[in-house]
Amino acid sequence: MPGLAEPVQNLVNALERLPGVGPKTASRLAFYLLQAPEDVSLRLAEALVNLKRSTAFCPQCFNIMLVGQPMCDLCAATQRDETSLCVVEEPLDILVIERTGAFRGRYHVLHGVLSPIEGVGPDDLKIRPLLERVRGGQFKEVILATNPSMEGDATALYLRQQMAGLNLRITRLARGLPVGSDLEYADQNTLLRALAGRQDLL
Amino acid sequence: MPGLAEPVQNLVNALERLPGVGPKTASRLAFYLLQAPEDVSLRLAEALVNLKRSTAFCPQCFNIMLVGQPMCDLCAATQRDETSLCVVEEPLDILVIERTGAFRGRYHVLHGVLSPIEGVGPDDLKIRPLLERVRGGQFKEVILATNPSMEGDATALYLRQQMAGLNLRITRLARGLPVGSDLEYADQNTLLRALAGRQDLL
Repeated sequence: MPGLAEPVQNLVNALERLPGVGPKTASRLAFYLLQAPEDVSLRLAEALVNLKRSTAFCPQCFNIMLVGQPMCDLCAATQRDETSLCVVEEPLDILVIERTGAFRGRYHVLHGVLSPIEGVGPDDLKIRPLLERVRGGQFKEVILATNPSMEGDATALYLRQQMAGLNLRITRLARGLPVGSDLEYADQNTLLRALAGRQDLL
Repeated sequence: MPGLAEPVQNLVNALERLPGVGPKTASRLAFYLLQAPEDVSLRLAEALVNLKRSTAFCPQCFNIMLVGQPMCDLCAATQRDETSLCVVEEPLDILVIERTGAFRGRYHVLHGVLSPIEGVGPDDLKIRPLLERVRGGQFKEVILATNPSMEGDATALYLRQQMAGLNLRITRLARGLPVGSDLEYADQNTLLRALAGRQDLL
């Protein structure tokens, strides 16, 4: 881009590699950082450098944990329900569910979903260790909390098949209208699900 | 946040300090970087560290330039129109105008706008060096390209007063309906400006 000093252009390029950050956002951020205290850039740089160096995956649930820990905080916690397991696609999903405060069991991160089109099969995900954990017999319920998408649904179906015959309640998160939404703007699939899953008003 | 390893939380905190990045975007970006090749984080970190160390303000127009250069590329360029000067609020505005390819003169960056409420007066901006440049007599036209906002308008008016008596054409960017927009969605002020500035169809 003419008139853009190289260090700024480098930062714009690096920012553009982030998801959801286009050329305009990248320049806006770069110019913000140019006029912000240097501390803002340096802290971000430090956090970026430390990110992968200081983190590892929990050997049990594959959540993010600090390098050197035997397992992640959630696996190590003693106050949690040992009988229910929530299976999610990504570590971020754990945060989202934890924020609700409505689930107090254990987690398992698949690190993706089955996707034949993109060549992702069962062995590319943390499915084998999941099945081992479940076959251990500790869990009474497994919540398959993959995303309500085609791939998420297919992955949940596959996992249900793999867990067939075990003495387990296998559940999926409810589909329906998002709270605070408007019928008028609901897409047809969501509305179909909301109708099919309608509940008695007690 | 419970369950979030400290290095990830540090990155989320640093990202949240960026404009337009809330807690959700910050976590999404942090978890993206966790699973992306480490190179993505490290390049961004390097660009951030180099940003302020390698850049300075052009002593003439106050655009960004490389440390050690006598002046910025746009001031150094010999092929540009020496008689017109475009005054902008921020260095980013130069990029936006350069991208149009419709202006080939010189620039001057104010580094802000007058804002009595926020305590920004003429001496907090690069107004004195602007007036010196303009009094040099080189320019025939000064385009006051501050933003079409209250502060941008007030700053333009102030600059016009300061430049009164000089043999100069002083202009402001046209107001009106954005190209590709819809009358129905235009706000009243824009529509008023568009009406007042209506042009003969030739």
